[in-house]
Amino acid sequence: MMQPPLDSATTNAIRAAVADGFERQTQFLADFTRIPSLRGREHAALDFMAGALRMRGWQVDDWTVSTDQLADQPGFSDCNGEVPHIRSVVGTLEPSAPQDVGQSLILQGHLDVVPEGPHDMWHSPPFDPQIRDGWMYGRGAGDMKAGKVAALFAVDALRRAGYAPAGRVHYQSVVEEESSGLGAVATLARGYRADCAFIPEPTGLGLVRAQVGAIWFRLKVRGRPAHVAYAGAGASAITAAIHLITALQKMEADWNTQAAQHPDYRDVPHPLNFNAGQIKGGDWTSSLSAWCDVDCRMGLLPGDDVAARRAQIVETVQQAAAAHPFLRDMPPEIEWTGFMADGYSLQNADAPEAALARAHSAATGASKPQDQSWTALTDTRFYGLYHGIPSLCYGPEADSIHGFDEKVNLASVQRCTEVIALFIANWCGLRPLSG
Amino acid sequence: MMQPPLDSATTNAIRAAVADGFERQTQFLADFTRIPSLRGREHAALDFMAGALRMRGWQVDDWTVSTDQLADQPGFSDCNGEVPHIRSVVGTLEPSAPQDVGQSLILQGHLDVVPEGPHDMWHSPPFDPQIRDGWMYGRGAGDMKAGKVAALFAVDALRRAGYAPAGRVHYQSVVEEESSGLGAVATLARGYRADCAFIPEPTGLGLVRAQVGAIWFRLKVRGRPAHVAYAGAGASAITAAIHLITALQKMEADWNTQAAQHPDYRDVPHPLNFNAGQIKGGDWTSSLSAWCDVDCRMGLLPGDDVAARRAQIVETVQQAAAAHPFLRDMPPEIEWTGFMADGYSLQNADAPEAALARAHSAATGASKPQDQSWTALTDTRFYGLYHGIPSLCYGPEADSIHGFDEKVNLASVQRCTEVIALFIANWCGLRPLSG
Repeated sequence: MMQPPLDSATTNAIRAAVADGFERQTQFLADFTRIPSLRGREHAALDFMAGALRMRGWQVDDWTVSTDQLADQPGFSDCNGEVPHIRSVVGTLEPSAPQDVGQSLILQGHLDVVPEGPHDMWHSPPFDPQIRDGWMYGRGAGDMKAGKVAALFAVDALRRAGYAPAGRVHYQSVVEEESSGLGAVATLARGYRADCAFIPEPTGLGLVRAQVGAIWFRLKVRGRPAHVAYAGAGASAITAAIHLITALQKMEADWNTQAAQHPDYRDVPHPLNFNAGQIKGGDWTSSLSAWCDVDCRMGLLPGDDVAARRAQIVETVQQAAAAHPFLRDMPPEIEWTGFMADGYSLQNADAPEAALARAHSAATGASKPQDQSWTALTDTRFYGLYHGIPSLCYGPEADSIHGFDEKVNLASVQRCTEVIALFIANWCGLRPLSG
Repeated sequence: MMQPPLDSATTNAIRAAVADGFERQTQFLADFTRIPSLRGREHAALDFMAGALRMRGWQVDDWTVSTDQLADQPGFSDCNGEVPHIRSVVGTLEPSAPQDVGQSLILQGHLDVVPEGPHDMWHSPPFDPQIRDGWMYGRGAGDMKAGKVAALFAVDALRRAGYAPAGRVHYQSVVEEESSGLGAVATLARGYRADCAFIPEPTGLGLVRAQVGAIWFRLKVRGRPAHVAYAGAGASAITAAIHLITALQKMEADWNTQAAQHPDYRDVPHPLNFNAGQIKGGDWTSSLSAWCDVDCRMGLLPGDDVAARRAQIVETVQQAAAAHPFLRDMPPEIEWTGFMADGYSLQNADAPEAALARAHSAATGASKPQDQSWTALTDTRFYGLYHGIPSLCYGPEADSIHGFDEKVNLASVQRCTEVIALFIANWCGLRPLSG
């Protein structure tokens, strides 16, 4: 059900409306980025979004669900019990004339950000966004507050141009994208569906054709502590943890060798990254450490069976432990602390892809967005893989996401806002707002 | 100035007095062990000791010194500024008749204990001492509260037998033995001296003939964080820290090869232990870690120059960093967090050794205590190396010090109390208490 091409007057009017609102949009993005919406501390950002939606006249659904109640949803991760509740905020715009309704759309984005690390390694404070040379710096500015804000202001721009989407639009603010995807799961469990989902993660105006999956796990290594004087009598949990990390790095190399066969990743060097992202162990410098916890992430390919990959991780750890003088008798525990995520290759998305290509072309002059095979993941998998909702990931250009001096290119944000507005026009259709 | 041998009646009376008091001594040890006198939290234990001394009529010196004021003392470590003050408690017994004064004695012991680690790895709570099969279990029971209490009750036993030491005795309670020795430094800076120092660390009724030195340092590794998806673009501080640990383990092996030539350590396999005792790094499982701190300890031999060994550690870290793709451009920092300790081989101690041998023989039947070359260190170095005070380390039998289920053998504690009482008699001489 493709909409007829927009005439160039409408296209130009929409682009001009985006430009008109861009200063306010930039200010809004700065205000939003100022909120340190780290895992477990997303409430202020959710309130901010709920307020912005209400002010614009969207219907707002703001609810909290106990994580336990999501356990039967596909793609569920129990996060080792560390995330008891999920709050989400969804704004809905219903088309006013049900008889000529256009295709519906979910505009989804997460508002959780990853920790900013030591502040002295930032050139400007991570939660005090600043603009330099056309880039806005700040934790979360790129991943993915700029895209999230672009989607909201895209609808604003349509309105300023005198239009509303002719199909139902759900504007969804979710949490936990960076850890598990439980926010997306919660909205799907709530019953939200549409003909297409669109997630403006920072893709540099490219289209994510494929994305990896990931598994999070914590190695809990216990040692046999002793005074370092009698090192032979004890066993350092830290040294033992390093032994396990080394074994997992070997597994990583093996998986990447296999990955060279995957149609979406054969041209991507080393798509599957293992990361020991956090480590903590020991209580005393002169004691062999009694304990060491290592928080790990391992990627997997679209098409991989998560349970099978998980079993391989367990096997790798068990084999390494069995070959270790001390872990043999005191094997480490593994906790599953977050992602238990399938990879996802875009499928059954010809229609929304065509609508996006048309919008991208109108805003950028290029015939279509560049395809990307991501070594990270996004929430698209939930819509595409488990609910048959074609799910596009396309957004502005960011740099150093998860790093210091994360930044987003504001010109790309404006361009992305235009593309999203034009995509909505192409996908949902437009109806004139009655004056 | 050797005292004449004790007659067997006096010897027996002193041993009987120890036995008489041993139930109270055991209770006192349990009460003392119940105090979790961890680094920086030794005040309650110092109060406990000051109270016990006052109750017994000792003169008590209870003072606090700013660590800065100790900076010109030999063997000083600045502990990276983490220990601003040092409090010590010294009890003194003066001989009542100055004209026939015996040799003086410092009975020193530390009351700081090392962290107990996860409580679930203890069979009984670490600070709820329990007795099983003749052993008292608890953090610090062995290292070194049992020996410390034995020295106090040894003097009590002499009094119950009708005697007081004929020479001045300083009973010193110090902190920081486990980290730097700043407690011992503070007592020496205060002016306390004697003809001999005696430290009842848990030696299993052996005599420490030699002990290693140690250097503490913290590696502060900074990474170049990035989303794990782009692992190639960033650099994990955790992975880089593991690279440095590996280089230091190689250095450890080299130093031990050299140690095979040392007269006191040629028969000790692997006397110099490197330990990465604490590690902490990273903020997010799916981000390459921005930082990783590793707290390290490295042993050194008696006779080694601490400054030269310290320089070798720096060089090892620098060379490893220079050979690393990322650390090359962002070398780690090294902080000196505690020990900057010389090793020490007992010297000029023939007279106190003979007095100890006689006491040990009277209590155990063996001709003299077994010599030990320790791969740990004690405070004896300050007295022996910097102040010409022969300094003996001899105490009860403990097991699993710094580990879980630390314990001390109560029979050995009683034996040790006898030996200390008899040693005081041999060294200081006795004078009858006027009835």
